Amino acid sequence: MTAATPTPPAEEPRPSRVAFIGLGTMGMPMAVNLVKAGFQVTGYNRSPQKTERFAAQGGAAADSVAAAVRGADAVITIVPDSPDVEAVLLGADGVFAHAAPGTLVIDMSTIRPDTARAVADEGAARGLRVLDAPVSGGEPGAIEGTLSIMVGGAEADVQAARPVLEAMGSTVVRVGPSGAGQTVKAANQLIVAGNIQLVAEALVFLEAHGVDTERACTVLGGGLAGSTVLNRKGPAMRERSFQPSFRAELHHKDLGIVTAAAREAGVALPVATLVAQFMGALKAQGHGDLDHSALLLLVERLSGRAPR
Amino acid sequence: MTAATPTPPAEEPRPSRVAFIGLGTMGMPMAVNLVKAGFQVTGYNRSPQKTERFAAQGGAAADSVAAAVRGADAVITIVPDSPDVEAVLLGADGVFAHAAPGTLVIDMSTIRPDTARAVADEGAARGLRVLDAPVSGGEPGAIEGTLSIMVGGAEADVQAARPVLEAMGSTVVRVGPSGAGQTVKAANQLIVAGNIQLVAEALVFLEAHGVDTERACTVLGGGLAGSTVLNRKGPAMRERSFQPSFRAELHHKDLGIVTAAAREAGVALPVATLVAQFMGALKAQGHGDLDHSALLLLVERLSGRAPR
Amino acid sequence: MTAATPTPPAEEPRPSRVAFIGLGTMGMPMAVNLVKAGFQVTGYNRSPQKTERFAAQGGAAADSVAAAVRGADAVITIVPDSPDVEAVLLGADGVFAHAAPGTLVIDMSTIRPDTARAVADEGAARGLRVLDAPVSGGEPGAIEGTLSIMVGGAEADVQAARPVLEAMGSTVVRVGPSGAGQTVKAANQLIVAGNIQLVAEALVFLEAHGVDTERACTVLGGGLAGSTVLNRKGPAMRERSFQPSFRAELHHKDLGIVTAAAREAGVALPVATLVAQFMGALKAQGHGDLDHSALLLLVERLSGRAPR
Amino acid sequence: MTAATPTPPAEEPRPSRVAFIGLGTMGMPMAVNLVKAGFQVTGYNRSPQKTERFAAQGGAAADSVAAAVRGADAVITIVPDSPDVEAVLLGADGVFAHAAPGTLVIDMSTIRPDTARAVADEGAARGLRVLDAPVSGGEPGAIEGTLSIMVGGAEADVQAARPVLEAMGSTVVRVGPSGAGQTVKAANQLIVAGNIQLVAEALVFLEAHGVDTERACTVLGGGLAGSTVLNRKGPAMRERSFQPSFRAELHHKDLGIVTAAAREAGVALPVATLVAQFMGALKAQGHGDLDHSALLLLVERLSGRAPR
Repeated sequence: MTAATPTPPAEEPRPSRVAFIGLGTMGMPMAVNLVKAGFQVTGYNRSPQKTERFAAQGGAAADSVAAAVRGADAVITIVPDSPDVEAVLLGADGVFAHAAPGTLVIDMSTIRPDTARAVADEGAARGLRVLDAPVSGGEPGAIEGTLSIMVGGAEADVQAARPVLEAMGSTVVRVGPSGAGQTVKAANQLIVAGNIQLVAEALVFLEAHGVDTERACTVLGGGLAGSTVLNRKGPAMRERSFQPSFRAELHHKDLGIVTAAAREAGVALPVATLVAQFMGALKAQGHGDLDHSALLLLVERLSGRAPR
Repeated sequence: MTAATPTPPAEEPRPSRVAFIGLGTMGMPMAVNLVKAGFQVTGYNRSPQKTERFAAQGGAAADSVAAAVRGADAVITIVPDSPDVEAVLLGADGVFAHAAPGTLVIDMSTIRPDTARAVADEGAARGLRVLDAPVSGGEPGAIEGTLSIMVGGAEADVQAARPVLEAMGSTVVRVGPSGAGQTVKAANQLIVAGNIQLVAEALVFLEAHGVDTERACTVLGGGLAGSTVLNRKGPAMRERSFQPSFRAELHHKDLGIVTAAAREAGVALPVATLVAQFMGALKAQGHGDLDHSALLLLVERLSGRAPR
Repeated sequence: MTAATPTPPAEEPRPSRVAFIGLGTMGMPMAVNLVKAGFQVTGYNRSPQKTERFAAQGGAAADSVAAAVRGADAVITIVPDSPDVEAVLLGADGVFAHAAPGTLVIDMSTIRPDTARAVADEGAARGLRVLDAPVSGGEPGAIEGTLSIMVGGAEADVQAARPVLEAMGSTVVRVGPSGAGQTVKAANQLIVAGNIQLVAEALVFLEAHGVDTERACTVLGGGLAGSTVLNRKGPAMRERSFQPSFRAELHHKDLGIVTAAAREAGVALPVATLVAQFMGALKAQGHGDLDHSALLLLVERLSGRAPR
Repeated sequence: MTAATPTPPAEEPRPSRVAFIGLGTMGMPMAVNLVKAGFQVTGYNRSPQKTERFAAQGGAAADSVAAAVRGADAVITIVPDSPDVEAVLLGADGVFAHAAPGTLVIDMSTIRPDTARAVADEGAARGLRVLDAPVSGGEPGAIEGTLSIMVGGAEADVQAARPVLEAMGSTVVRVGPSGAGQTVKAANQLIVAGNIQLVAEALVFLEAHGVDTERACTVLGGGLAGSTVLNRKGPAMRERSFQPSFRAELHHKDLGIVTAAAREAGVALPVATLVAQFMGALKAQGHGDLDHSALLLLVERLSGRAPR
């Protein structure tokens, strides 16, 4: 936790029983970290194998959303896209239908800010305390518990959720009211995609000039051009190793959120929008399952430099 | 110095007498750091006040290039643009006309890679050992001696120049033959301009959505969106404080080098080129003397959000 | 009609009674042209003044969609956006609820292709013959009856609708099945916006160089750079006269359709997308009510050339 | 000739003897049209075969620039690029060294406006009357004598040159002083490249949606999206027929002029610059010898739709 925050009021008890819905690449290690931190965690996933695997790591297994939510102080959801969040929260057999009034409902998926706001309003009407809390840091951050978590919702609800969130991330910041977490996540995805594209253009430029890119990256990283993308993705990009830590097709989905949210707010994002076209092109070229840093392939093909 | 390098051959003596031509915002503190490191430094600048100011800080003052260069083991030049470099090196009364064979000539200006190569060839024909060694890190890095220095030239010449360069920078990397230093500097300027533009787009996007950008930057910096630009420039951008540490008009000049060098190499840089247009627009709008991070002003005006 | 088409089967009678819903800037003159061509036209508009004005020009006035649709052989709708089309066609008191099986339902609004397909499917399930038939040519084309009409739907239905459509347009082309008309209209709006932007960039470029743009446009129009945009919009752009014949905010809406449809099809449109950002910026700057050719203002401000 | 122009003063005799230097794809038919119009034309080309071919069509053959220029009232040059123009005009054995004072020197090459101005100044200092008069219309226009000719230079000199120019083009317009012809040609190339890119994006978009593009082009051409590019290039683009009428690599060269001239004037051209990157990419991909309309290939590959 990096931002100073006031002590929560004494009377708010620490959540102890957590329902965790969505045990995918990100969700599984996050739920396991909650178990390790001493929470009683009941997990649910559409495919029961994952729920079983979670049970093998100290969690409890539920065979329905209702069963997972029953008796929980906090419910966490992390699913692929806006319609999935709407289904799991608002559906006839969803979280809102079964959670007790006062329950913390923390959606950690990456979805549209306006969907997050609508869902939070719907929850509030039922007496639930809904937060949007998307994450940055990828699978490594989920495993290590070092995620950055950007939270939108009421100050008191964020405070109440802090013990849970801090078991999963090292940077937990309330960035504003409902939807604000998703807005910041959108900004995050905008910058990350752009930084990848710029490193890709720089590498292709340097290679075309015959420069040693390993040495170049060392010196670039030491100056104002340094970035987490350059540090973490640069070496693999130089070696054309695109094992996915975050798939291009997911980043494409997220950039759709960025452009929609920018349109809604009346903001022009010329460079981000252009990068979004290239991420979409990468997917259209059949590389949606590569790491998003495979934008490098697109840049080098554009200049006729691809291996054929 | 971050890159491991072989020990220089024993017989090469450490340069002791250095001529330093160009005592501007960057050159002056760099020359002073050489004095502090124990070199005998003779400075020259077109405007004699600067030469005098250098003399007041322990340097020797020369009233001509010829006088500065006479007897020097190494000559450093750092002047604004390609034509200035050509004038000071190749001119009738320039460095090449007066330097003794075997002298190290280290040009630390930011210029076109092809000009750097041409100048090095010309120097080699006269028995001089010419390096291109542009820097990154700005005025603070020049003062603190923590510049990143990207060097192009023969391995032995770079080794010979290391003691001099390491008195001015903390990262000194030979990135290839003549011109390679300038190529890497071009890549540096490409990435930096792009990163500024992306942070600007993200900030305007967040402000339009009413998000607290200070908290947002905290959490963005902790994830994959983190960058030196976000850390160093973000706070001032949020406050619209554009006191120049590097002027937009200079970055515009440098992006001209990037696009020319990309064209020469047959490389397409769609995003970098678009950013270059915006940096040019910022200058055209009369803001060339602001810090390059003032790209933020352009982005917010584009979306009709500028203070009128 | 420019495309050769087979003679319609003899047994299909020419529609004679037409319901016309949406008597706006475009709809009114289109409906009047139907009256002039001898059709019995019953008009309906949400604001009754427009319905009355239509009655004064030879049409019949209806005070509800139901009343307009009753007994009609063909129903034409032309309303602002996708939700309006859904409301007027699918609503409880809408066209589909009241039209007799076999009725031709011709939507001439500009909407999303997927909405057009969905609506056509819904209509088919009720025995209606739905076409999407958006138009190009603006208010002048609507008045003169020289619109270009791009039609999607079944061949036989398009043939049956031809007499009606040819009373409003001089180019009536079936471009494919349901939704294809809207897809072609999207392509039309893509090209038009782009051509305006290019003429704007060219004019600002020429003005900055002090060239007489009137003479320049004459010679540009005579070569490969010639376009309908240059001919029709160029003179007003040169004079900064932006009385709307098509408002920027409507073009912004249409470019949202383009980018959504491109995303759906997995197509990258880098230049169109960038132009769409600028059209959005024009609206965000408060100029959504100017003609779309006011992109010129944005281009000149970008280069600091705007009158302040 | 489309623009009204005052009658030339009576005392200026019509040029009768013309030297024509540069008998390439464009130059040869232009020179032949001068012969047909009754001028005495002496041709020169570096490769003597072309000069001989010209002689076979009624021209006189010269074996040097000096021989061609001797006794000419007007000298026309049309060569590939700026350095070629400088060589043929300013070289030791060039046009300026041999032309008599008062001679009209009409350069019809496409070069940088600043080079055109410099050359004109140099010519004026020797008493020559230099015009820049680049053309649009391609090989067909050169053969048919229907070129658009955009002329920069003094009004009286343009008047004197009119009889010569009107033998080659149907639109001859003085657009301003020296260099203005080249500036307008640059604007022409900006618009043409952009229009090609937009038609390419529209076609790929339509194909991806399964629309019949022949019918679509018919209806697009009838509305505001119509353009000379769509009419002349559209059919071949649909059929992927890229026999060059104007090679992509030449257009790439011309777009380099556009971006340099925009930079010189402090004008931002975001869309034109992006298109220029794609034209450069097309060349880098090895397609520089295809027609410039092959931008379509690049657009479809970007979206993964290329035939492999």
